Amino acid sequence: MTQRRATASEEALLRIFTVPEAPDSTLSVIEQNISQNLMGFLQESVVAVEKPLSEIELDFQQHQIPSAPQFVSDYADDMMKTLVAHSVHTSAPSFIGHMTSALPYFVLPLSKMMVGLNQNLVKIETSKAFTPLERQVLGMMHHLIYSESDEFYQSWMHSANYSLGAFCSGGTVANITALWTARNQLLKADGDFKGVSAQGLVKGLRHYGYDDLAILVSERGHYSLAKTADLLGIGRENIIQIPTSSDNKVDVNQMRAVAAKLNDDNIKVMAIVGVAGTTETGNIDPLDELATLASELDCHFHVDAAWGGASLLSNKYRHLLKGIERADSVTIDAHKQMYVPMGAGMVIFKDPAFANAIKHHAEYILRKGSKDLGSQTLEGSRPGMAMLVHACLQVIGRDGYEILINNSLEKARYFSELIKQHQDFELVSEPELCLLTYRYVPKSVQMAMAQARENKDVQSLIEFNRLLDGLTKFVQKRQREQGTSFVSRTRINPEAGIVDIKSVVFRVVLANPLTTHDILAQVLSEQSEIANQDNKFLPQLLQLC
Amino acid sequence: MTQRRATASEEALLRIFTVPEAPDSTLSVIEQNISQNLMGFLQESVVAVEKPLSEIELDFQQHQIPSAPQFVSDYADDMMKTLVAHSVHTSAPSFIGHMTSALPYFVLPLSKMMVGLNQNLVKIETSKAFTPLERQVLGMMHHLIYSESDEFYQSWMHSANYSLGAFCSGGTVANITALWTARNQLLKADGDFKGVSAQGLVKGLRHYGYDDLAILVSERGHYSLAKTADLLGIGRENIIQIPTSSDNKVDVNQMRAVAAKLNDDNIKVMAIVGVAGTTETGNIDPLDELATLASELDCHFHVDAAWGGASLLSNKYRHLLKGIERADSVTIDAHKQMYVPMGAGMVIFKDPAFANAIKHHAEYILRKGSKDLGSQTLEGSRPGMAMLVHACLQVIGRDGYEILINNSLEKARYFSELIKQHQDFELVSEPELCLLTYRYVPKSVQMAMAQARENKDVQSLIEFNRLLDGLTKFVQKRQREQGTSFVSRTRINPEAGIVDIKSVVFRVVLANPLTTHDILAQVLSEQSEIANQDNKFLPQLLQLC
Repeated sequence: MTQRRATASEEALLRIFTVPEAPDSTLSVIEQNISQNLMGFLQESVVAVEKPLSEIELDFQQHQIPSAPQFVSDYADDMMKTLVAHSVHTSAPSFIGHMTSALPYFVLPLSKMMVGLNQNLVKIETSKAFTPLERQVLGMMHHLIYSESDEFYQSWMHSANYSLGAFCSGGTVANITALWTARNQLLKADGDFKGVSAQGLVKGLRHYGYDDLAILVSERGHYSLAKTADLLGIGRENIIQIPTSSDNKVDVNQMRAVAAKLNDDNIKVMAIVGVAGTTETGNIDPLDELATLASELDCHFHVDAAWGGASLLSNKYRHLLKGIERADSVTIDAHKQMYVPMGAGMVIFKDPAFANAIKHHAEYILRKGSKDLGSQTLEGSRPGMAMLVHACLQVIGRDGYEILINNSLEKARYFSELIKQHQDFELVSEPELCLLTYRYVPKSVQMAMAQARENKDVQSLIEFNRLLDGLTKFVQKRQREQGTSFVSRTRINPEAGIVDIKSVVFRVVLANPLTTHDILAQVLSEQSEIANQDNKFLPQLLQLC
Repeated sequence: MTQRRATASEEALLRIFTVPEAPDSTLSVIEQNISQNLMGFLQESVVAVEKPLSEIELDFQQHQIPSAPQFVSDYADDMMKTLVAHSVHTSAPSFIGHMTSALPYFVLPLSKMMVGLNQNLVKIETSKAFTPLERQVLGMMHHLIYSESDEFYQSWMHSANYSLGAFCSGGTVANITALWTARNQLLKADGDFKGVSAQGLVKGLRHYGYDDLAILVSERGHYSLAKTADLLGIGRENIIQIPTSSDNKVDVNQMRAVAAKLNDDNIKVMAIVGVAGTTETGNIDPLDELATLASELDCHFHVDAAWGGASLLSNKYRHLLKGIERADSVTIDAHKQMYVPMGAGMVIFKDPAFANAIKHHAEYILRKGSKDLGSQTLEGSRPGMAMLVHACLQVIGRDGYEILINNSLEKARYFSELIKQHQDFELVSEPELCLLTYRYVPKSVQMAMAQARENKDVQSLIEFNRLLDGLTKFVQKRQREQGTSFVSRTRINPEAGIVDIKSVVFRVVLANPLTTHDILAQVLSEQSEIANQDNKFLPQLLQLC
């Protein structure tokens, strides 16, 4: 049993585990550029003019794992050309179509520390201090929403048998976790019945005497809710979409009427979901009224504040989310307006015992009585991302977030004024948070459409919108391809109350602190210029007037 | 509408987004230490002697988000003392109890690049070239398992309407995704029935005339499978655990018998899960036989190769997983034996159309016909971790992985010999991959137990095992607290065939390429020494002989 001598290739291989990248290696130089000037690095490295996806794919055709190892420097060179050059400059101040933003610089070295430490938050044994840190982050977010007493947090924040929420990769998993727990809480063990967790949905419904379950949410609810209903065995059709009023907020009276009808049909409303920041327009449902309805119906009240939750950090604007403190569970994404890198979602539970409905144990980990976080999460092994949320909460602080959030919201109000003052643009949805939608509509077309609206001339309105759809898509695509700035697009109804159609509109998210008023003015002038370039829609629109 | 002048605190705040950390700042110095000597950094920064969790928690008590921003350097100082010092040195060569390992150095700068680029893989619009890259990684892993033709990958790898798998945060989500898809495929739309996805499980079972669904898996299956059954509305009781033979491999005949019985009861076997690398002992089910059974039952065949899948990269040992190429879906974690940082799981689908059973669309993203990866994943927004898998596949290459995997497996065989040759240790499970279990049993106790086994003296065996449990726990805990080395522990039956008990054993995972034969010898001598320190179990054991 003597130790065999390592071969030359073994020794070469071990070096990647033991010898750091030399400071003058390609990868180290790239890294220094990122550290010293991320914006400049991205500006220089990401090509401005868009390359068609089909061409990008040519660099990723090989389907066999290569046999021979590649030098790190060669690999880095390749990736700069094929990957980085054709990635999306998500942090550019003129890219205002995404929910991503510029990140604070300090998250870069901290991310590296996180990767180097390579903790696994599923259990204490592989995470140690990261577990109390994650519990503290959940506690701080809980306090941000619910403001319970000091005693409350002393009792529950680090308690082995309770948890104030669950950290996860993003809002979708957070929403799933909340509604999974709500389902299990509703169909819990009772008498002979061991609970839906153990015995499944069919037996659960039979035991409780329901024909089916339903979840009520605004028609603007995020698509992850339908995914959740699918996953949980409830079915996408049982996410009942309730119409919104013209301000994109759910109509609570209609929701109440639907709930009564479901009750008559012996379908149990399992949960009501309030949206705090719709993905398309950033509007917030009347959370207080929804909380009241949920209490009337004796059902779970979940708030999907993946986007809007960060606004709670602003004392000036947190009133917009009034009623959220009555929610049983709340989803918040730290990788959205909390300026944390991608991969940091959270669900917060009002009641520390709530998550016990999905509790699970295993022999080798998650032993009973342990403080392992993995016993109440959907995910198993997962990284220490909570560290980056923790860092942002401390380094930015409430005072810093107050400024960031307020500036975002006020920037959106500024931009909406700019749009309204421009004769050839039409604001479609007013910003409530920092999202708004609009489109390019030449002044003469605006006047003709106003006339058509007054006359309830539905046919003309449909035709105008059809052509505007084409124009908006043309402008959005061309602007994206030019690579100087980017707005996204979605489809909503700009003719609410007259005719039920969905039209394409520009959508902007003004969360990036580096986006200036000048940039906003440039975005409009670029769009105006593109709209007047060669296209078939504008002439037809003008002809219709 | 003139631009308001920024206040001093606004300007200070913006600086964290625009001004990089100075090269001599605390955080930059920490980062340089990580870059230049990660092992040394961890060795120095993580305190060796364990601090009780309750004391660590004292540093994470504050439940209010602080008002005032904190300087990055102060924060970094704090975290070095409170977090890093009390994290787990998961990459230490003498920490052989986890499924984490040392990481290649080049993943550190690449991780930083990934965070700096901050792409969101849910859709092309926020990921661009990262989407073809991720599809290529899935294609390479598909080829590793299924070795389809060049034409196959040309047709499907970058196809908008198909996908060769799904990238996710880890094995649990991968297993959930596979079985979710299998459930939806089984209870698909048919005539008036719109499918379980739309109409839910109750209507699905009614339409197809089943009383219930079941999933068959070895009793050694990962706990995430029970979680999956809970989540999907099938119920934990419907994960039917089939006994294993003494080598920890599922007994396929018993599984066949159980399936027949379920069929008689009108319970449809939805899926069979084969385990390729049990978490406790690293054993692999007879995958070929399971594939045959699945085909007899006309059900889905999933292989959970979260751990063992990486062994396919070894031409010498991939035969151990024979039959995996007949699986309909396979889970593989790249953050285990593929040496990628935490957060990189995958599920691979044999049939590129399979994932369409969970396909979903939304207006603003995931438009029909797009190549967005988010339309076939459980998660929504998620980071570009596939980049790190891509890098490891290229930089390590098949040849490199061949060495890494073979060395791991052979190191485990070496260690098992070492244990067997040591008079006071007992090997409990032989390594099939690079996992094994053992315990400290003094020679005289071993002899007495052999006698008891021969005599089928169940009472004595129970008593010996009870005392050995205490001793093993004592040794494992003390060794962990001393901080020089670490093995984990689990409970399995060392008296299989005689009496059905579960005893505590040491569990080691030999994936870290830096673990030397000398370290293994030291681990044993440290354990032997601790076992002979003051404890109540050893004297009682010796007295029993």
